[in-house]
Amino acid sequence: MNNINVLRNTILLVEDNPVDVDLTLRAFKFNKLTNPIEVARDGHEVMSWIKNYKKGEPLPVVILLDLKLPKYSGLEVLKAIKSNTILKSIPVVVLTTSSEDDDIGEAYQLGVNSYIVKPVDFLKFIEVVRQIELYWSVLNKTSIH
Amino acid sequence: MNNINVLRNTILLVEDNPVDVDLTLRAFKFNKLTNPIEVARDGHEVMSWIKNYKKGEPLPVVILLDLKLPKYSGLEVLKAIKSNTILKSIPVVVLTTSSEDDDIGEAYQLGVNSYIVKPVDFLKFIEVVRQIELYWSVLNKTSIH
Repeated sequence: MNNINVLRNTILLVEDNPVDVDLTLRAFKFNKLTNPIEVARDGHEVMSWIKNYKKGEPLPVVILLDLKLPKYSGLEVLKAIKSNTILKSIPVVVLTTSSEDDDIGEAYQLGVNSYIVKPVDFLKFIEVVRQIELYWSVLNKTSIH
Repeated sequence: MNNINVLRNTILLVEDNPVDVDLTLRAFKFNKLTNPIEVARDGHEVMSWIKNYKKGEPLPVVILLDLKLPKYSGLEVLKAIKSNTILKSIPVVVLTTSSEDDDIGEAYQLGVNSYIVKPVDFLKFIEVVRQIELYWSVLNKTSIH
């Protein structure tokens, strides 16, 4: 069964920490974002969506991916997306607390589109979420929507 | 000989059309951007820089890549960057007049980080350049600078 419901222009947030999910959803709400938001709370949910994806179904406009996930790590999820001919067109933005060079380097090797370190301060975090949404849902073009 | 001079935080603009180069430089100036800007005016210049790049030398914070270039196409340049283990960490943003699905699809297959269609209106173009610079030189993290 596929628990992730992706519509046109959906932003898919992959995040297991309930506090961070809540914070991000508040930031989206605060910024009056119009994109549908879908939350996957572990790597397994996304892997299942990847496995069951059928050509022609809507793709998220961007995936915001945490690295520290239960079941499958964010980097494993990233690898699965970027190894799939169709899904690799989805912009994937790693949004994480880790600013370790190893994580950053590995993410770029696997084909991440962008890597952003979450600011600790909530107001800065709101602004970062606003810029991410503006950039990927307004400025950036994909061939998939 | 290597004609491209990349410093820390350099934005590398790959664009052959003198009007578009002028427009982009004006937009950077208008936005008071602090990054050094380097311009490559054909694909050959970039290919030569890629070939002569030595590990440890500074990498651009982002490459803004036009698609229609003399000598090598933008897609060939993109492929060369993303096939190189070190250089693939450089975020590459295609900035072009082409909104053709084939170009967009091919760019994502080759691993482009982002694809932006140049607005025709100058004021909108200035705003787009501002957002690109803000996003890639402030928000986005790489392991290379």
